Amino acid sequence: MTTTLITGGTVISATGSALQDVLIDGERIVALLAPGTTPLGPVTADVTIDATGKYVIPGGVDGHTHMEMPFGGTQASDTFETGTRAAAWGGTTTIVDFVVQAHGQRVQDQVALWHEKASGNSAVDYAFHQILGDVNDESLKAMQELIGEGITSFKLFMAYPGVFLSSDGQIVQAMQAGADLGALIMMHAENGSAIDVLVQQALQRGETGPYFHGTSRPWQTEQEATHRAVMLADLTGAPLYIVHVSAKQALARIAEARNAGQNVFGETCPQYLYLSLEEQLGAVSEEWGELEGAKWVCSTPLRSRAEGHQDELWKYIRTGDVTTVSTDHCPFCMKDQKEMGIGNFSKIPNGIGSVEHRMDLLFQGVKDGRISKERWVDVCCTTPARMFGMYGRKGVITPGADADIVIYDPDGHTSLGIGEGREHHMNMDYSAWQGYEIDGHVDVVISRGTVIKDETGYIGGKSHGRFVKRELSQNLI
Amino acid sequence: MTTTLITGGTVISATGSALQDVLIDGERIVALLAPGTTPLGPVTADVTIDATGKYVIPGGVDGHTHMEMPFGGTQASDTFETGTRAAAWGGTTTIVDFVVQAHGQRVQDQVALWHEKASGNSAVDYAFHQILGDVNDESLKAMQELIGEGITSFKLFMAYPGVFLSSDGQIVQAMQAGADLGALIMMHAENGSAIDVLVQQALQRGETGPYFHGTSRPWQTEQEATHRAVMLADLTGAPLYIVHVSAKQALARIAEARNAGQNVFGETCPQYLYLSLEEQLGAVSEEWGELEGAKWVCSTPLRSRAEGHQDELWKYIRTGDVTTVSTDHCPFCMKDQKEMGIGNFSKIPNGIGSVEHRMDLLFQGVKDGRISKERWVDVCCTTPARMFGMYGRKGVITPGADADIVIYDPDGHTSLGIGEGREHHMNMDYSAWQGYEIDGHVDVVISRGTVIKDETGYIGGKSHGRFVKRELSQNLI
Amino acid sequence: MTTTLITGGTVISATGSALQDVLIDGERIVALLAPGTTPLGPVTADVTIDATGKYVIPGGVDGHTHMEMPFGGTQASDTFETGTRAAAWGGTTTIVDFVVQAHGQRVQDQVALWHEKASGNSAVDYAFHQILGDVNDESLKAMQELIGEGITSFKLFMAYPGVFLSSDGQIVQAMQAGADLGALIMMHAENGSAIDVLVQQALQRGETGPYFHGTSRPWQTEQEATHRAVMLADLTGAPLYIVHVSAKQALARIAEARNAGQNVFGETCPQYLYLSLEEQLGAVSEEWGELEGAKWVCSTPLRSRAEGHQDELWKYIRTGDVTTVSTDHCPFCMKDQKEMGIGNFSKIPNGIGSVEHRMDLLFQGVKDGRISKERWVDVCCTTPARMFGMYGRKGVITPGADADIVIYDPDGHTSLGIGEGREHHMNMDYSAWQGYEIDGHVDVVISRGTVIKDETGYIGGKSHGRFVKRELSQNLI
Amino acid sequence: MTTTLITGGTVISATGSALQDVLIDGERIVALLAPGTTPLGPVTADVTIDATGKYVIPGGVDGHTHMEMPFGGTQASDTFETGTRAAAWGGTTTIVDFVVQAHGQRVQDQVALWHEKASGNSAVDYAFHQILGDVNDESLKAMQELIGEGITSFKLFMAYPGVFLSSDGQIVQAMQAGADLGALIMMHAENGSAIDVLVQQALQRGETGPYFHGTSRPWQTEQEATHRAVMLADLTGAPLYIVHVSAKQALARIAEARNAGQNVFGETCPQYLYLSLEEQLGAVSEEWGELEGAKWVCSTPLRSRAEGHQDELWKYIRTGDVTTVSTDHCPFCMKDQKEMGIGNFSKIPNGIGSVEHRMDLLFQGVKDGRISKERWVDVCCTTPARMFGMYGRKGVITPGADADIVIYDPDGHTSLGIGEGREHHMNMDYSAWQGYEIDGHVDVVISRGTVIKDETGYIGGKSHGRFVKRELSQNLI
Repeated sequence: MTTTLITGGTVISATGSALQDVLIDGERIVALLAPGTTPLGPVTADVTIDATGKYVIPGGVDGHTHMEMPFGGTQASDTFETGTRAAAWGGTTTIVDFVVQAHGQRVQDQVALWHEKASGNSAVDYAFHQILGDVNDESLKAMQELIGEGITSFKLFMAYPGVFLSSDGQIVQAMQAGADLGALIMMHAENGSAIDVLVQQALQRGETGPYFHGTSRPWQTEQEATHRAVMLADLTGAPLYIVHVSAKQALARIAEARNAGQNVFGETCPQYLYLSLEEQLGAVSEEWGELEGAKWVCSTPLRSRAEGHQDELWKYIRTGDVTTVSTDHCPFCMKDQKEMGIGNFSKIPNGIGSVEHRMDLLFQGVKDGRISKERWVDVCCTTPARMFGMYGRKGVITPGADADIVIYDPDGHTSLGIGEGREHHMNMDYSAWQGYEIDGHVDVVISRGTVIKDETGYIGGKSHGRFVKRELSQNLI
Repeated sequence: MTTTLITGGTVISATGSALQDVLIDGERIVALLAPGTTPLGPVTADVTIDATGKYVIPGGVDGHTHMEMPFGGTQASDTFETGTRAAAWGGTTTIVDFVVQAHGQRVQDQVALWHEKASGNSAVDYAFHQILGDVNDESLKAMQELIGEGITSFKLFMAYPGVFLSSDGQIVQAMQAGADLGALIMMHAENGSAIDVLVQQALQRGETGPYFHGTSRPWQTEQEATHRAVMLADLTGAPLYIVHVSAKQALARIAEARNAGQNVFGETCPQYLYLSLEEQLGAVSEEWGELEGAKWVCSTPLRSRAEGHQDELWKYIRTGDVTTVSTDHCPFCMKDQKEMGIGNFSKIPNGIGSVEHRMDLLFQGVKDGRISKERWVDVCCTTPARMFGMYGRKGVITPGADADIVIYDPDGHTSLGIGEGREHHMNMDYSAWQGYEIDGHVDVVISRGTVIKDETGYIGGKSHGRFVKRELSQNLI
Repeated sequence: MTTTLITGGTVISATGSALQDVLIDGERIVALLAPGTTPLGPVTADVTIDATGKYVIPGGVDGHTHMEMPFGGTQASDTFETGTRAAAWGGTTTIVDFVVQAHGQRVQDQVALWHEKASGNSAVDYAFHQILGDVNDESLKAMQELIGEGITSFKLFMAYPGVFLSSDGQIVQAMQAGADLGALIMMHAENGSAIDVLVQQALQRGETGPYFHGTSRPWQTEQEATHRAVMLADLTGAPLYIVHVSAKQALARIAEARNAGQNVFGETCPQYLYLSLEEQLGAVSEEWGELEGAKWVCSTPLRSRAEGHQDELWKYIRTGDVTTVSTDHCPFCMKDQKEMGIGNFSKIPNGIGSVEHRMDLLFQGVKDGRISKERWVDVCCTTPARMFGMYGRKGVITPGADADIVIYDPDGHTSLGIGEGREHHMNMDYSAWQGYEIDGHVDVVISRGTVIKDETGYIGGKSHGRFVKRELSQNLI
Repeated sequence: MTTTLITGGTVISATGSALQDVLIDGERIVALLAPGTTPLGPVTADVTIDATGKYVIPGGVDGHTHMEMPFGGTQASDTFETGTRAAAWGGTTTIVDFVVQAHGQRVQDQVALWHEKASGNSAVDYAFHQILGDVNDESLKAMQELIGEGITSFKLFMAYPGVFLSSDGQIVQAMQAGADLGALIMMHAENGSAIDVLVQQALQRGETGPYFHGTSRPWQTEQEATHRAVMLADLTGAPLYIVHVSAKQALARIAEARNAGQNVFGETCPQYLYLSLEEQLGAVSEEWGELEGAKWVCSTPLRSRAEGHQDELWKYIRTGDVTTVSTDHCPFCMKDQKEMGIGNFSKIPNGIGSVEHRMDLLFQGVKDGRISKERWVDVCCTTPARMFGMYGRKGVITPGADADIVIYDPDGHTSLGIGEGREHHMNMDYSAWQGYEIDGHVDVVISRGTVIKDETGYIGGKSHGRFVKRELSQNLI
């Protein structure tokens, strides 16, 4: 097995930072060493990487991606191949993708399908959550089996009636199963029934442009659903993880439940931290005309900056009431995909692609003084691994763990976007982050001991990534 | 320098646990190693400690002790010598003791006095907080100097009028200085003016026994003062740490401030987690008669179990709203000391001694299913070190840190108390914890690389401990 | 026209009490007079009623009754004739009954049907709310027409899927109409989808007795639905009135919305103030065996006394966060009706009959020191009249108002129940209030100037009562 | 005795309005009559006042005035004679003035002094609160005696150290007495100790102008003191009335206590509803230069409009969490009085004069759609009378009550201010309300049956007003 030594860097954990060397043997970290002479004598390795002046951090864990996901007659534009390669470019070495079971489908069939899609096609390691779009006796029974197969979290929807929406009665049943099994229930918390009415009314009023996607999903519909999920979790005892929270009022409700000792967790995404409804309002471009705003159509939607959601979300990252920052990476191209919504925002495929940029965008929060570098690592790497039952292997630089490591240059620079000297590696014909400048840079990415990205670019293999069998959550209180 | 290798144990950090070996060189940890063959070849050391089946944890950091503290005409019965030795017995390798400045005293004189007391007399490392019992231009000015000397936190009192109490105006001034300097303001939050009236009224009603100490300090006086401190901190921008919180309502207020993003922190102590006012109520013994209850006279007082304070405090440890568990170790003997309060509870010296038992008592919470072992380490070791600016040296097992390590047997047993085959090592003629049985045991204690306690008992040197110059808090958000 | 003078009594209003005489001319109050000689000379009348030592209060306004209501294959056992006569016996001179539109029915047909049922058959005046069990374009359009006809409030259900339940989307539409029209939206706030699952699970576990009706409708399902209704009202701007609140957590949510200035109102009922789940638990009788508990099966259900709901509800009456106390009078006999639920609690018709006892039961709260006599009048008479747009005619003793007056003896006594020297006048073969003793008594009841109940008993006419065309609510803030 | 009949007007109570005639006999209202023919035959009187198209409301009750009050070396510029005459002009027929006991003074001496000042010099009826500036055994004992003399509420200060401030211990003692006696404790809730430091710091920074009065009393100092008072009231069981609340955060705290069922009440004043710190910021005039802002120096201070205090206060009037609106009338002239603060805002006498304008300013809230006309009457007349134990005599138009009545023209107009065709009747050389235009007008004012103000102006007698012996509060829950 090849040995690798990373020297001179500052190793950052969730609780602190230190100048330390990291020794890798094959796929695993085997030693963490104080720099300088030690009783071990000079430590050497087959490969030595000089990280002087750099941060040495755990590879990113993105707990929320949708590669190749079917949605509204099309599918997310990144395959596992393109999407995980983009993740690698951006310092993310583990993704947790959602197996989709829609109404009428068998869970186990879908799991098999997802394994087929991902296996041999992934640049980095991957794990699966299971979407339960059809809660019934069979799918409830499948939960236990899936846990045995390392799929230990189950996502329900309070939105998308007729497609994914579970009734409150179904939610109760799935949560009871989650409570019994110790499995995490994940929730898309928007009141789909109310939203559908608001959407139809907007369209009838001639409000057809992308901006009205957001105005027809007001914060009350998110806060309401969040509260409902929290209450049903309180009733059943299930641990609950609310995905992609964008409304400050929803996070306030989550924080309240957490203070009460309930196992409730909140995830947010970079788009909700940086982007706003106001910017979407006037979006027009030469290329896309009034469809320009479709680039940022996602659900939950972007929120108003005037109402202060973005600052509140950053605050809740500081306080720990945002547990993880994932991407909800669900990319669609403008051409042929977002275009489906010309003249009717409700036909725009919902999703933004960010899997490549999460580590950078959150590091910018460090540079901007919003969070510490330890909280950056915590919320992007360590706690996602704990939350989803991968701690010890992922999310931490410690002997015994998988050698998933990023060498990050805090003095580097990264320009996001495409064209004009910029490029990204997601299969998207636009960037939601066009023009963003990051005061840092992903220098080297190591996945299970192999350097897959260095100063020359991506050098990994197409089939390097492996499926990660997850344990139950290690983050419950 | 001597090298020491700890093998076979489970190393626990605030975020997770793993089978790892720890290599110590002299006073520092130099390597953390995955067990088994590594590219480094066989690792050997002068001394090898087999920790198979044991927990290997950072030495405990007790952020709140009062060795030799003058109080009400007597002084705390543990000297630095006896108190730090007891700490060592119990797996605590760092204490932060309070330098006392009372009205009319000069801060710098008191710091010198405390150095004199502690230097050469400490079994383990020690640091200092500064009590500002007299906020004036001179003491305010001293704050900056003390920070340069490694004393970076300053405690004020809202209780004890005429002795330590600062007026709200003085608190504002000290907090302004704290905000300017980035220094932590610590607060004893009880409304002393109201309490003094309630105490006098109780005595006039003939309520003179120890139990009435608690009833004359009702939770409202603690919650009120906590809120006042939080508001003044909000006004001035000072980071605020509330010491020895015992009322659930006070913690609820702290949790609310934390949700709002304010730098407010809560400390509690083992006595508030286990003991209650009800038990104090009927306390009578053959030896001490009705003075028996004086054993548990401390301020803030024990709270009612019927009101549920204890369970709520454990809950807030889980949620993270209790930041640290310290002891407020302030021991007094029954003989001649607690006896001063015969017939008048207000003359009983306030204090309980627990410096020896904190790690055990909190581990019992792990055994009882109240907290995880990681949270145990977090709240007793890692976060206290971060909170008080010692992270990297104390509170964590990582290369570069001081080799302060405890080998803890999760299957061992410890009987607390004195007499009948029990003994403790604090200089107290009683134990507040008489009869408590702990399902775990401190096997070995290493301080800066030296084994100071092993299966044979305490083997450290009287002058082993050194003063720790602290940084500003590393735990602010 | 006949004139009537009530002399010597203490007239009670929502804000205070005074010794005053009341002069009635025909159907209306024409003067309120200070007792004793006045510049008007001696006031005489055709009939003089001596109320010395008695309270003179507005006739009770019961804002929530279900006479002859179809439910689960049977119908409420009181007709308008028997039910309004019982109301008269108990000092209630106005009821607001619910016109029922179920799925598939036309609103206007149902209104006609209700007029037919009530007209000529009512002992006291009556008004109508409209239940919208089928929110669609036609029923939404009907709202405006009904307001013109004096039916100005519209009730929706979040429970009873397939019968009355409106989806959240339908609720949004009805609330938008309510906001536009200024009409009150009333809500049965229980999460019916979740409850249906819990009910089926209970039955599958063999929990078939009446007690399990309550345990399968836990407080979380009420609090959740209450919050959802509040949020949708916030979204749409509709004034919202939550009927029959029984869970303290639901009222806490209502109180919070009210503090925020939202037009949200809470109603409770005597059963939730006095009765509890615990009493239902062990209920067995010689006559009815284990069906005994069915006497108190209603929805929302009785709540646990150990959890303190009853005391909290009384508290919220004091604080004003309970706006009105109605009965939700929906009587069913044990024989043939409640019996439908032998062996399956879900088949028990839901409802309790209290229309006769509300004024007495709430007065007992005055005697027990829970509320003032002014708050008694306020919550039972004045505010219901304001809430439902009848102020000036109903709910107040003031010149110009309908002469609906009760002479209440605060030193009298009333024994509730049936048999053993007790009788009630509701068409029920049991009493939910068996054995209750009230320290007060309804002496005389006057409806629109006519004495319909005196010391000899009920002396009113079958067709005395008239339909009251209501205005929009006069109680919005 | 003279009889007076007011015909044709709309009589407004706290709960509703109706066209009614009011018959007065001597000093009392003796009948309230439905207009038109009645069985009483034609009602005639010595004097008939046509109120057609007008509102007939209870005379205003101003619960907070300071006539002739000594303050900082000067005294309030209105005597009882001038101040009560101005009150009469503005439709206020009862004031409750504060007897001042400062440190070292005897309560009973001060009561005698206040009777001397007021007796024979008051245009309208007056009552007294008692300020306890020196809580000691003697003053505590005096509380019981004063209650017997009709002085049933006692005001304490948390501000003004060395002058009026009570320590928290003193507050506890006075509250215990209040709880025992059922007497209301009134509180000036500002943290005087903190404020004094902030004031000195501001002056040292050269912030000497009037605007800095407000910035040195930030909302935290008010919210903190409010919470402290609420907690001490919770501890002791005393009913608590917080005077002149200006910070929305303080009112939120009051609302929270009220939801919990605590007897806590909040008063605000017109200045906090209309005026703001921002307007005070740039205030400069030709006449007064930079002292201009001194016109609005009062404590609590005006609050920032950008922070939204004013709108929140109006909201809390709607929700009932503001119990009363008083004036805190404490006038000082600019000349010689406010001038004392040239170059040092802390020397500016604190106070604004509004006793003449309260009814008008609050009516403007009706016109502006902020509150209903019933709530106007409630918060300005009825509830103050209940709150302070005068209900039945004051604050309500009902037979038996004192004939204190205002005929208010809702279509009239009133221009506030002095000079340029404006005049007021307070003894002030400026108006805090210069240029305010009110869409209503006080037409006629009747005090105990005597018209004291009509279209010709003030026609009352100097010694018409009498002392009102008050009962304990009738507004407790």
